[in-house]
Amino acid sequence: MLTKTSSQSLTEQLASRFATRIRDRLLAPGARLPSVRQCAQAQGVSPSTVVAAYDQLLAQGLVEARKNRGFFVREMAQVREPRSSDAINSVATELPGPRAPMNATALIRGMFQRPSDKPQPGMGAFPPEWLETTFMPAAVRKVTGTRALQEFSLQYGEPAGDLGLRRALSHKLAGLNVPAAPEQIITTVGATHALDIVSRTLLRAGDPVMVEEPGWAIEFARLDAMGMRILPVPRRADGPDLAVMARYCEVHSPKLFVSVSVFHNPTGYCLTPGSAHRVLQLANAHDFHIVEDDTYSHIAPDHATRLSSLDGLQRTVYVNGFAKILAPNWRIGFLAAPPALAERLLDTKLLATLTTPALLEKALAWCIEQGQLRRHAERIRTRLDLARARSVKLALAAGCTFAAEPAGLFGWVDTGVDTDALALRMLDAGYLLAPGSLFHAGRKPGTLMRINFASTQDAAFWKKYAEMVRRP
Amino acid sequence: MLTKTSSQSLTEQLASRFATRIRDRLLAPGARLPSVRQCAQAQGVSPSTVVAAYDQLLAQGLVEARKNRGFFVREMAQVREPRSSDAINSVATELPGPRAPMNATALIRGMFQRPSDKPQPGMGAFPPEWLETTFMPAAVRKVTGTRALQEFSLQYGEPAGDLGLRRALSHKLAGLNVPAAPEQIITTVGATHALDIVSRTLLRAGDPVMVEEPGWAIEFARLDAMGMRILPVPRRADGPDLAVMARYCEVHSPKLFVSVSVFHNPTGYCLTPGSAHRVLQLANAHDFHIVEDDTYSHIAPDHATRLSSLDGLQRTVYVNGFAKILAPNWRIGFLAAPPALAERLLDTKLLATLTTPALLEKALAWCIEQGQLRRHAERIRTRLDLARARSVKLALAAGCTFAAEPAGLFGWVDTGVDTDALALRMLDAGYLLAPGSLFHAGRKPGTLMRINFASTQDAAFWKKYAEMVRRP
Repeated sequence: MLTKTSSQSLTEQLASRFATRIRDRLLAPGARLPSVRQCAQAQGVSPSTVVAAYDQLLAQGLVEARKNRGFFVREMAQVREPRSSDAINSVATELPGPRAPMNATALIRGMFQRPSDKPQPGMGAFPPEWLETTFMPAAVRKVTGTRALQEFSLQYGEPAGDLGLRRALSHKLAGLNVPAAPEQIITTVGATHALDIVSRTLLRAGDPVMVEEPGWAIEFARLDAMGMRILPVPRRADGPDLAVMARYCEVHSPKLFVSVSVFHNPTGYCLTPGSAHRVLQLANAHDFHIVEDDTYSHIAPDHATRLSSLDGLQRTVYVNGFAKILAPNWRIGFLAAPPALAERLLDTKLLATLTTPALLEKALAWCIEQGQLRRHAERIRTRLDLARARSVKLALAAGCTFAAEPAGLFGWVDTGVDTDALALRMLDAGYLLAPGSLFHAGRKPGTLMRINFASTQDAAFWKKYAEMVRRP
Repeated sequence: MLTKTSSQSLTEQLASRFATRIRDRLLAPGARLPSVRQCAQAQGVSPSTVVAAYDQLLAQGLVEARKNRGFFVREMAQVREPRSSDAINSVATELPGPRAPMNATALIRGMFQRPSDKPQPGMGAFPPEWLETTFMPAAVRKVTGTRALQEFSLQYGEPAGDLGLRRALSHKLAGLNVPAAPEQIITTVGATHALDIVSRTLLRAGDPVMVEEPGWAIEFARLDAMGMRILPVPRRADGPDLAVMARYCEVHSPKLFVSVSVFHNPTGYCLTPGSAHRVLQLANAHDFHIVEDDTYSHIAPDHATRLSSLDGLQRTVYVNGFAKILAPNWRIGFLAAPPALAERLLDTKLLATLTTPALLEKALAWCIEQGQLRRHAERIRTRLDLARARSVKLALAAGCTFAAEPAGLFGWVDTGVDTDALALRMLDAGYLLAPGSLFHAGRKPGTLMRINFASTQDAAFWKKYAEMVRRP
């Protein structure tokens, strides 16, 4: 609720709230602002305050009025590049692919800012308090003695990443039956960077790529920004839709398949061995590569089915990171690839960032070697199981149905109402949601949304949610 | 000199030495191995040992024999992808642009491995011992208290980078007359990553880009790998060749100009104000962007002429990093851009790596704020002046001439002999050189090479050098 202060009028406060959301792309270009009446009611202000605030946004060039239809957020190039040169415009508008990366970064930016201190159902990570440990600071102290620090800080370091960490990762992968020598492993700035390196190495603009749908928004956005042709493969409970994949192979000869086998985001589905086998058969027959994003492996059983394990890293690239389980800001991820391909991926890493910081890699290696990370992951898993049980109960009570059997970190729920609109209104109440449209290559709106089981145990959220859904 | 050990025969040692160099691309694909006689003489072994070693390389698929011409390193795709799929080959061979990025990463990989403990004339950075300070470990301790560490490690952090650091950088840039608010600044994984982000945001495959020649090998290699059309602009003592630039603008409408204004790599040239003004006039008339790589600013006077300062960051993007002056492995760089463009560059950063590690950014901010970095840079500058004077004297005595007035970190010297061949032979003596071909877009061989003044004060190197040049 807005309250008048000595320094800012209600109008100014309301206008600046909208302006921030437009700039952060929580309000997407082309999105319609609420009607004056709706907004006045939602914010508890007079209609004239809303009119004045919308006028300010108009004057700032952030929105445009369309006759008899209301106010709309201006297109990105206009909003963000008021004096844009032709060079920039041509890059933005001529991008190939089915759509421009309009508000593709909305969810990404949302990840970095909580609209309030409340638990955030739309977040993609564990709440920070879940990740608090005593061993992490101990690990940092371990590697930041003066001499050690000088030794590894003052040179560029190993191109593939800290050897100690790569050895620890090799050992860890062996436990998942993924055979990868330290030489096949390359550390990266988080799993995101690993996926980026793979795309840049294997693909050229215009290449067709198969990506699971629903799927991770950042992956769609990146491939889109790189000008790839995205071929969405429906994700089923047992794995990707093989008939659709086979058809794509016949018609488009895709170069790459991007897949999350274990605790798929956003559905929580896990790949079955039979499905994995058939995906690999298809890859062999049609000669495409597979990049397997195993980001959720830390909360999964070791015996879960992974393509990289069946394939023995012949044509798969395995990708993982530690942002979900340890320290998002350390930005440590890695990839494991067939030896010859690893060399080419390393070249891409070098051209993009040279090396990665050894300090944090050494600290992480220590956490893995001491068994601290494994024990920590077990504790998180236990806690998540309890949270999930509680969240599911609350979600069902609030009238949601589950579009997929609840498992892993995320729930894929059907709300019965348009979740794009719901997300905007919940934002006013301080909650960031992840509407289903964010997980579709074509941004198709719908009634689904992703919830984070770790941050939806809060009865207050579900009360607010039920209220909003009942009063559309 | 090779010596027989109990575990490895001379043949094995020699073969493995060549194999390593081929894999690290210090011996480029297509390069000819020395003749059996030459090699035997250089290594102090019998010709039959050389023949046996070359046979091993042949068996390993690393080299091929060409009738009556000797042994040649096999092409990259063959060497590194023995079971390569068509998908991979097509990416490698169909790249547009004037040349494939053959051994583009040779120098880059060289940066990460000293062939011996001797000072390395071909290195692009200060020797680690020059960078040793007491304030760097102090800075790390300052930011790694348990509470602080938990606070910033357990969330993704600010998309644009640590705000404290961006404020410190904004202040530092003001001292160079480059007006950049913290909101216009984005931290990156070193200057390399900043340049990469700019290219990815402003360019699409096939776009023409002007790059100074001679110029930095990694920049050529990256643009090449991205499929850009590189338009080399001769770099003169006062700045880029404006007539050539004007002609490119007429014919190709380039989208971007990549430039090092201050202590240009490898020549050490500094841009004059008049030249800067005319470059900007051209940019305005033909509507291209400029990215100014100011990596060597730390050892330059504040009043040196920079395009970003004249332009006031209207169509320039300013890039810098701290690998050269503080800690190469911390991998901290940044860019400063016009506000609207900064937003787009930030999106690219998010899609490629999400955020960057705050721990090191906070430590760096402390070093800047305390004035430690400035004082350290002053000490380095004084030391470099002395080293340069000594190196120049030794180089001249060894028969080199300077193709450019010695200044900054690098000398651009003419040896009178083919430096590609010289570099290979000096490697056997434990010295990594940077032959001139690495600084040309077309890899044109020649008699020039770049020397690092900080690591060429060693009379032993120049003695070896003179010996090799006399006995070609």
